[in-house]
Formats: sequence, C-alpha cells, structure tokens
Amino acid sequence: MPTEAVSAAILVIGDEILSGRTKDKNIGYIAEYLTGIGINLREVRVVPDVEVEIVDAVNALRHRYTYVFTTGGIGPTHDDITADCIAKAFGVPIDVDPRAVEMMLQRMKREDLNEARLRMARIPEGADLVENPISRAPGFRIGNVVVMAGVPAIMQAMLDNVAPTLVGGTPVTSETIKADGLPEGLYAKPLGEIAARYPALSIGSYPSYGPSGFTNQIVVRGRDLDVLAAAVAEIRAALALLESAKA
Amino acid sequence: MPTEAVSAAILVIGDEILSGRTKDKNIGYIAEYLTGIGINLREVRVVPDVEVEIVDAVNALRHRYTYVFTTGGIGPTHDDITADCIAKAFGVPIDVDPRAVEMMLQRMKREDLNEARLRMARIPEGADLVENPISRAPGFRIGNVVVMAGVPAIMQAMLDNVAPTLVGGTPVTSETIKADGLPEGLYAKPLGEIAARYPALSIGSYPSYGPSGFTNQIVVRGRDLDVLAAAVAEIRAALALLESAKA
Repeated sequence: MPTEAVSAAILVIGDEILSGRTKDKNIGYIAEYLTGIGINLREVRVVPDVEVEIVDAVNALRHRYTYVFTTGGIGPTHDDITADCIAKAFGVPIDVDPRAVEMMLQRMKREDLNEARLRMARIPEGADLVENPISRAPGFRIGNVVVMAGVPAIMQAMLDNVAPTLVGGTPVTSETIKADGLPEGLYAKPLGEIAARYPALSIGSYPSYGPSGFTNQIVVRGRDLDVLAAAVAEIRAALALLESAKA
Repeated sequence: MPTEAVSAAILVIGDEILSGRTKDKNIGYIAEYLTGIGINLREVRVVPDVEVEIVDAVNALRHRYTYVFTTGGIGPTHDDITADCIAKAFGVPIDVDPRAVEMMLQRMKREDLNEARLRMARIPEGADLVENPISRAPGFRIGNVVVMAGVPAIMQAMLDNVAPTLVGGTPVTSETIKADGLPEGLYAKPLGEIAARYPALSIGSYPSYGPSGFTNQIVVRGRDLDVLAAAVAEIRAALALLESAKA
C-alpha cells in the first residue's frame, strides 16, 4: 500500500519555545490534523532562530519525509529569518513577491508598507503562496516544505488552506481501551504477545498519573478495520482474564 | 565566559505524541526549568518508538550538547524500549539492576515483580539511578544523557532529583516590554538596529493574536544585567518615539 508511505515532519523555529517563555501549541494541533488526513507524522524538531540550524534541519527533514511543516519566524522583525533560510536550503533566490504584496494590501495602505513589513512579502523563487485570512502576510509552499506562521490561529488557517493540496494516505483509525483497574505491569506480557502478532498495528500503553493514582489506556492504531477489531477483541479478552484472576 | 556554553537538548520518545493523541506537556516545562538554572536549551526532537530512530537521535544529540534529557518509553510494556536504545547508543550492556529492584520493592511485593515489571529495572551498565518518588521505577543518567519518564508528574520529580548533579551556567535574565499599541511592522526596523548593536543579547518580538487583535511583546534576554538594562532602555525610547509620532 503505497499510501501508507505518506510521512511528515514538523520543524518549529523559535528561541521563545526553547527558552520556555512560549509554550508550543502547534505540534499537538498539527499532529492530530495530519493523523486525520492519513499523513504519518514521524519526527518533530525545535530549533533556535539561527540560520545554520534552520537550514540544516530543513535539508535533513525534507529529504527524509514526504512533507515538512515549519512554524514560526515569518514576521517583520530581525529575528524572523525563516523565509531566507528556506531559500538558502533550496538554493534559490528570494525577493519581494508582488503576489504577496497584493495580499498584504488587502489589509494595509500602500504607504504603510514599509521596509520591515515588506520583509513579510519576501518569498523564495518557485514557491506557491498560502493565504493568511487573519493578518494577510502569506505563508508559502516550496517543494515539499510548507512554511507557516507561529501564531496558532494563523497557523491553523494556513494549514486549512494548504491541506487540499496535500496527498494524504488512508487515515489511521484508533481504538482506546481503558484498563483503569489493572496496572501496566500486570498486562504488559499478554499485550506484548498480541502486539507481536499484529505487526501492521501500532499498540501502545499509556499511563497517566493524577489525584486518583494511575489510569491506563491501551491505544490500538491501524488502517485495516478488520485487523484492528480482531486485535482489540484479543486485548479485551486478555484484560478480562486478568480481571477475573484478580477477583 | 565558559559557563555560557552549557547547552542541552530534549528528546521526546513516543508514538502517542506524533499521532497527536497525547499533547506533550514536558517540553515547555523542561525548557523553562533549564533556563532557570542557566542551561541553554538548543534543540528538541520528538521521535517514534522505533529503535533506530531513538539510537540515532541520542547519538546525534549527546555529541553535540552538554546534556540530553529524554522523556518517555521506560514503562513495563512492549513499546517501552528507551533503556535498551540508550544502552545500544552507548555500546554498553543492559541488565536488571539490583539497585533499581530495591527501589521498586519499596512499593511492590517481591512476588508481584513479574517479568514485565522487571523490565523497568533494566538499566544500562555504568548509569546512575534517578529516584522516582511516585511509582518508584527509577530513571537514570549515563554520561551526559538523563533518561526520565513521560508521565509529567514523574518526569518533574525526576528532574528535581537530577538537577543538583548538573553543572549550570549563569542564569539568563529576561525582560519583557509590552508593545500593544504598536504593530510589529512599525518598530521592526529600530528594534533590528538595536539588536544588531547588542549581539550578546537575544532580542525577540512575539505577536499573539486573540479576540482583541494582535498584542506584541518584545523579550530581551541576556546574562549581563547592565547590558540588558541598556538595551531595554534603548528599546523603550524607540517605542516612545514611535508612539509620539503616531499621536
């Protein structure tokens, strides 16, 4: 199934995430979104606002995955260097793009389009623009790299706009089995045996810890619904057996 | 200043983060924590529960940064493969560690310590244990790599326990200047000029978008308080000039 091979990476660009000052809200959002359209997120990186780091990460990721989604660093200030770094990574020129200027003029008078704001219209040669319905300065897509804003509301709108141009795969379906009454250590062995028999599925066990102690969830993910149902039935049977042995 | 060179990376391990099912809460916490003790977080990666991905990431990061902090993958189930991957990355044997067993026996009877739970006591040779006051199964530190749980409450306790063993640098101080009334595009040029004159500082401009439109913050970060204060004064003066020109 070639569609299973649709993969992606996210590259988050920004000192503010690494300093902890800003808590990223984009990774989880994009991850869930891609899963929903059958694109398999395989890696995330966060790098600082440093040219060599951004260029190296873009080149490492774009050769490895079907798509790369970047967030951050496309504003008007000196620390916004993403567009220039993308151009460098692809080895193409970058300049003020008249299409981007047109978009920005929907929100701004021409006399307000100063040098700093024109930076936001700098687009690498050969890129397609991604509309920004909120503040108008666009994102763009060049090759398999989609460049988006860091502000969550804008990033989300850009992702909606670029999604129809992406080739998705068969969406993954997931089923969650609650195993609250049973500790992980008790079901780990039968679960591992079931997982080994279903190599096409991703089976994970996720404990969370809260005021009432540990609560565990077993998540089974896969593209073939029959296979998924069979594994879920086996896991439920194994848990029931353990429950009755406990009682 | 050699202390400025204390750097770190975070490696988050887990399919559940990449599928978007679980929203990571550890990156932002560790980032802020490290900033507070003068350790400069330079990179974050998220990788799936796949041996080769984990081993490659650990080796790429541990040779590049002073410290690497991993989260996730040290439980008792089949998808918990972090400890084995760390051993492989360091090229050392791994086996059940009697010290880890002792810790686990503080919470559990010996007859309940089955094969799956003993997996949590598997520690690479030469590692120091990191206590886990909540569920007892320890994390560990080997060389410059600190291996912690993925459950946030446990990760946070482990980080507290390992922090005294880390060599920190001079903590970074940051000052935030609100620039709500002014759009980024208006102050970008003077801010960039000031940033160019203070290469030892990190100066960023961070827009957020909410119901009342854009609100901007300029964040100045650095280790030398006098230099920091001088730059902040220059930025305030520049903003005041722009405000008065607007009025």
